[in-house]
Amino acid sequence: MRILVVNPNTTVGMTAKIGEAARSVAAAGTEILAVNPAMGPVSIEGFYDEALALPGLLQEIARGEAAGANGVVIACFDDTGLDAARALATVPVVGICESALAAAGMIATKISVVTTLSRSLVPIEGLVRRYGFAERARVHASDIPVLSLEDSASGAGSILRAAIKSALESDGSDAVVLGCAGMADLARDLTAEFGVPVIDGVSAGVKMVEALVGLGLKTAKSGAYARPLDKTYTGALADFAPAVILRG
Amino acid sequence: MRILVVNPNTTVGMTAKIGEAARSVAAAGTEILAVNPAMGPVSIEGFYDEALALPGLLQEIARGEAAGANGVVIACFDDTGLDAARALATVPVVGICESALAAAGMIATKISVVTTLSRSLVPIEGLVRRYGFAERARVHASDIPVLSLEDSASGAGSILRAAIKSALESDGSDAVVLGCAGMADLARDLTAEFGVPVIDGVSAGVKMVEALVGLGLKTAKSGAYARPLDKTYTGALADFAPAVILRG
Amino acid sequence: MRILVVNPNTTVGMTAKIGEAARSVAAAGTEILAVNPAMGPVSIEGFYDEALALPGLLQEIARGEAAGANGVVIACFDDTGLDAARALATVPVVGICESALAAAGMIATKISVVTTLSRSLVPIEGLVRRYGFAERARVHASDIPVLSLEDSASGAGSILRAAIKSALESDGSDAVVLGCAGMADLARDLTAEFGVPVIDGVSAGVKMVEALVGLGLKTAKSGAYARPLDKTYTGALADFAPAVILRG
Amino acid sequence: MRILVVNPNTTVGMTAKIGEAARSVAAAGTEILAVNPAMGPVSIEGFYDEALALPGLLQEIARGEAAGANGVVIACFDDTGLDAARALATVPVVGICESALAAAGMIATKISVVTTLSRSLVPIEGLVRRYGFAERARVHASDIPVLSLEDSASGAGSILRAAIKSALESDGSDAVVLGCAGMADLARDLTAEFGVPVIDGVSAGVKMVEALVGLGLKTAKSGAYARPLDKTYTGALADFAPAVILRG
Amino acid sequence: MRILVVNPNTTVGMTAKIGEAARSVAAAGTEILAVNPAMGPVSIEGFYDEALALPGLLQEIARGEAAGANGVVIACFDDTGLDAARALATVPVVGICESALAAAGMIATKISVVTTLSRSLVPIEGLVRRYGFAERARVHASDIPVLSLEDSASGAGSILRAAIKSALESDGSDAVVLGCAGMADLARDLTAEFGVPVIDGVSAGVKMVEALVGLGLKTAKSGAYARPLDKTYTGALADFAPAVILRG
Amino acid sequence: MRILVVNPNTTVGMTAKIGEAARSVAAAGTEILAVNPAMGPVSIEGFYDEALALPGLLQEIARGEAAGANGVVIACFDDTGLDAARALATVPVVGICESALAAAGMIATKISVVTTLSRSLVPIEGLVRRYGFAERARVHASDIPVLSLEDSASGAGSILRAAIKSALESDGSDAVVLGCAGMADLARDLTAEFGVPVIDGVSAGVKMVEALVGLGLKTAKSGAYARPLDKTYTGALADFAPAVILRG
Repeated sequence: MRILVVNPNTTVGMTAKIGEAARSVAAAGTEILAVNPAMGPVSIEGFYDEALALPGLLQEIARGEAAGANGVVIACFDDTGLDAARALATVPVVGICESALAAAGMIATKISVVTTLSRSLVPIEGLVRRYGFAERARVHASDIPVLSLEDSASGAGSILRAAIKSALESDGSDAVVLGCAGMADLARDLTAEFGVPVIDGVSAGVKMVEALVGLGLKTAKSGAYARPLDKTYTGALADFAPAVILRG
Repeated sequence: MRILVVNPNTTVGMTAKIGEAARSVAAAGTEILAVNPAMGPVSIEGFYDEALALPGLLQEIARGEAAGANGVVIACFDDTGLDAARALATVPVVGICESALAAAGMIATKISVVTTLSRSLVPIEGLVRRYGFAERARVHASDIPVLSLEDSASGAGSILRAAIKSALESDGSDAVVLGCAGMADLARDLTAEFGVPVIDGVSAGVKMVEALVGLGLKTAKSGAYARPLDKTYTGALADFAPAVILRG
Repeated sequence: MRILVVNPNTTVGMTAKIGEAARSVAAAGTEILAVNPAMGPVSIEGFYDEALALPGLLQEIARGEAAGANGVVIACFDDTGLDAARALATVPVVGICESALAAAGMIATKISVVTTLSRSLVPIEGLVRRYGFAERARVHASDIPVLSLEDSASGAGSILRAAIKSALESDGSDAVVLGCAGMADLARDLTAEFGVPVIDGVSAGVKMVEALVGLGLKTAKSGAYARPLDKTYTGALADFAPAVILRG
Repeated sequence: MRILVVNPNTTVGMTAKIGEAARSVAAAGTEILAVNPAMGPVSIEGFYDEALALPGLLQEIARGEAAGANGVVIACFDDTGLDAARALATVPVVGICESALAAAGMIATKISVVTTLSRSLVPIEGLVRRYGFAERARVHASDIPVLSLEDSASGAGSILRAAIKSALESDGSDAVVLGCAGMADLARDLTAEFGVPVIDGVSAGVKMVEALVGLGLKTAKSGAYARPLDKTYTGALADFAPAVILRG
Repeated sequence: MRILVVNPNTTVGMTAKIGEAARSVAAAGTEILAVNPAMGPVSIEGFYDEALALPGLLQEIARGEAAGANGVVIACFDDTGLDAARALATVPVVGICESALAAAGMIATKISVVTTLSRSLVPIEGLVRRYGFAERARVHASDIPVLSLEDSASGAGSILRAAIKSALESDGSDAVVLGCAGMADLARDLTAEFGVPVIDGVSAGVKMVEALVGLGLKTAKSGAYARPLDKTYTGALADFAPAVILRG
Repeated sequence: MRILVVNPNTTVGMTAKIGEAARSVAAAGTEILAVNPAMGPVSIEGFYDEALALPGLLQEIARGEAAGANGVVIACFDDTGLDAARALATVPVVGICESALAAAGMIATKISVVTTLSRSLVPIEGLVRRYGFAERARVHASDIPVLSLEDSASGAGSILRAAIKSALESDGSDAVVLGCAGMADLARDLTAEFGVPVIDGVSAGVKMVEALVGLGLKTAKSGAYARPLDKTYTGALADFAPAVILRG
């Protein structure tokens, strides 16, 4: 099984860390392809960055499926372009927010999500509602910029720990979800430190794709995820055509 | 007052029709600038098209605000990129689904939304929930492709009328919202024919922007619509930088 | 265009202030008629006052429409008798809570509503849910009696400011809605002071009615807002017959 | 125990029928006082009639409590003025829609509510949501005018039976609630005919008030049902002052 | 009328207290049968205890109905096995959480539920949602073990009072529901002390059953509460067969 | 990895079929232990059967974990005793309704659940809400008794196919979930026949447990799934003590 893990921002160091987290949980026969787009923002912090990350993300997914990927993980906690990706792909596609919440919901009753900037609260709260966790999960910002997680001298670790401690107390929760792909390397340590399950979405996404592929499931093509209709694209996007790549 | 009306697809004929609908309701002192991006899909039918329409749409909004627009209407019924646009702009930005529902909700109790393809049902139902109309509005597909609305010989008119009739009966509704910018020219006739208010989102969007501008309101910049952070964009999007245009 | 703005309580000074706020945002061709009933309570603070304000309010609306008003704003933040008014009138009728939330929802993501007495929290929270803002708006009481807003020596201004500050912090909101018609004169100053949009419902109501009238919309008469059936009214209400006034 | 049952419309024959239904279930020591206002509409069909019924209804409740009633049933299925009545009274006040749903919810899983005119669907659906039955109860109109229930030659009985049959089938429900006080005499027969519990709100209201009084409960006065504040009422309502009556 | 009140745990002293509370509000002609199962846990604190209490509880209900009980109160605040009991019984069955919320909802607007251990928060919050009180009631733990309520020297009373005080303040509520059958004896005193209605579910349950029986209502048998199908039970449950007891 | 799959009813043939379905999707290194309790009902059809299945189910889970199982699938579509099982176990426990919905939600937008008897609609609809699929999934009964799925001559297959066809049409769904463990062998064929993903919960449950175990997750023990408190159990359950088995 070959799983494509797409970091939708263009920061190569973060892609490496994400790939490592993915490989650390992948089953014996699973190959992880960790990539990021060549075009787009260096990090995704809010609605605007997410929008500009989409074309590059979709291009990577099209290339990955054309190259034989059996499933896709979108490795940004706003589940960047998840619906568009599912319309494009025929293999299963999951988001890391979605996967982390699904896993957390099966082992705990109340969930604290701890993310980076406060501008991401509203988009993530929207995902929490979409995935059916409105009554069980609350979202908190730690006010750590995404890329400071890549910098060990930034103090991000201790700020994150303080945010987790505060969230567990105020929510009365029994599990934590880390709300940024850049935190993927911290889950195991934090689980030990806090004594509650602390879940990283990248790892969860890999296991969810393994599960879907293992069930022989493909993305449903008879509804809103129907294959994109053939149509003309112009301008900068004319040469760039994920759907065309896939149609081969 | 100058209102930018952006058709997020690249079909110029549809932009013209949208501009006409906008002008037909604009107040005496309101100038309408109807534009469409140079890059992107010729029509937006589903999640994938929407994603690829975003960069071009955001570019038009940045240019429009830089050129003095006081407010923006996004003239596609999936409210393409509404949150990203609000993060980008400082002037008010409204979607036509949002505006049509807001207007309908002030004059009626139950609302039938009639859109084009069935693949658009799920995205529009998502908007209905987002805007707080889950208990009041139901969405129906007429199975008319968007561009057939541009072709008077397509029979789209009579198919649409049948879909409206059926929706009113099954919903017990007292108002209709037309679920595609390409239907903007039909609202007045359909109101007369069906004896219930039939609302076009393009017109509603113009009046909502006039209202917001008249109230002196700007998009809130202290929360999730905070101005995009300065960061590097690479690849095809490097030269294209809506946020940079705006910071100008 | 002629817009009837009805203050549903009987305090003439408050009607004057409301009229002034309405005129300050009205479009060039819009005439504002600010009135209040001759019968009813001097202020509306809670469910009981609201009920006793209804007959006088409906009478003013019937008179206004008979005299040529093109639309109606009900200028009390509990949106007094909104449904009954819509059943009575054929022109559009909006409430100021409804209008303020609609405007706020188009420029911000999370909204703090700051009202007067704590006994109004439950009725306003009911409106917040009705208008679809349950996930986005929270309501706070400042414990200022309505009529103290008419008395510049009452200290109401500083109490209100403290309540707004506290609400913004606890809600993490990016806009404020003033929850009483008696605060209509404060929005502009408070916007400047707090650096977030602060919205007054009276102004918002006027612009929403202008929008609806500009769209050629009338209140839907085929559903729950159907014209009241002809029937006998007895007692103190026999001589008083809003529906009869309208039927001419 | 003395229970005041107020029919909020002015039709004396309907009050008599309501009183009879109330007495048929009242406990041994319970005295039923069935009254109707002297002022207001002859029947309540929609939002407008409800509004004009309020002053007379509140006056009857004030008189009743002053005369020693231990609890109040508001005997119209739109639960006319329930919140205002609770703010006015210190004894418990229940609505018949509320009481019927509470009873139905304790013996069945899904509930069909069958009411009179379709213009009452929206108000009753609002009550269904308010009382927490949105997922369990659906509302149907039989298109019987309220007063035709008072006329045995109207054929209302067979129309109602057809509506119940259709509702049970389409809802897959296991209980029926009769959605009009004028149907209070039919519950027992319909239960036998349809083989499912058919519940009348007037009877249910009496038993709920008996329960609340038996528990020694009074209406809470520290929140939104706080005693109306002392204030001036003018015009036709000056002489009429339910709150003053109660303050004695 | 004969009402079976089942304490689903095996602590006889608690059954006695529950019986006393039930009798203190029962109507003149109502006989209270307070029982507890011979098998099961000594107290119910969380999901696991609840599951193991079910067989004994159902056996008591079958015996009670066979012996002529006209209705049943399940006297544990997690409404242990309510749906199974309703499927088994033909007489009405109510839970004490359900009954207390129903009563509270008719006299107050916002409700604070104060229960024992924090592990019971999630199950009770589930009930609050099920009964339609998600927007009106919040649940608080006092961290008192259930059986310490049976021990006057445990200090449970003062801990409970502190929890009630804190809950009223943070919720802005106007009524309190005691979230454990073991608190049944405290409601009257606490009502006096706090000046808000404080409601005990055991008492409320008795009055609700009296109401349902007085209305001639039986549990609906055409839906999800249909009589259990005849089938073989094996093992420890073979000899024990509530449904068989009832079928006689 | 060793996964315990518990069929909570006592029908050995069904356990065998469930075990086969589980093994057909299990990863290379996963051992499946398919068991059923010795005590309880031969099938679970409705709330009552579910209650009596709990003690036997919990006993099997305790034995399984004591014997080294790394995770548990509860193989009945009402997710029998899921919360109690999670409180008992330290390894992850999933239900098959939960697992099937989670998988379906990642590849499709709208889901039709097709179950056996109509008395199971309400319990399963409750699960659909609990897992956050209220807006996406609808439940249908095929009126096939559970055990007729074990009898190839019963015609159950063609009845089920008709129910699936009807559900897809009325729901406009793009995926089907089979609502009974007894249908576990049919998913692959039905997927091919209907051209939409058809999902079996037993298989989905196995893959979800593999995912959770692969992530190193255990059931959270700091909240509502806290380890059962030490306490006395009496009667038929005294000798039977799942929690004691686990505590060793």
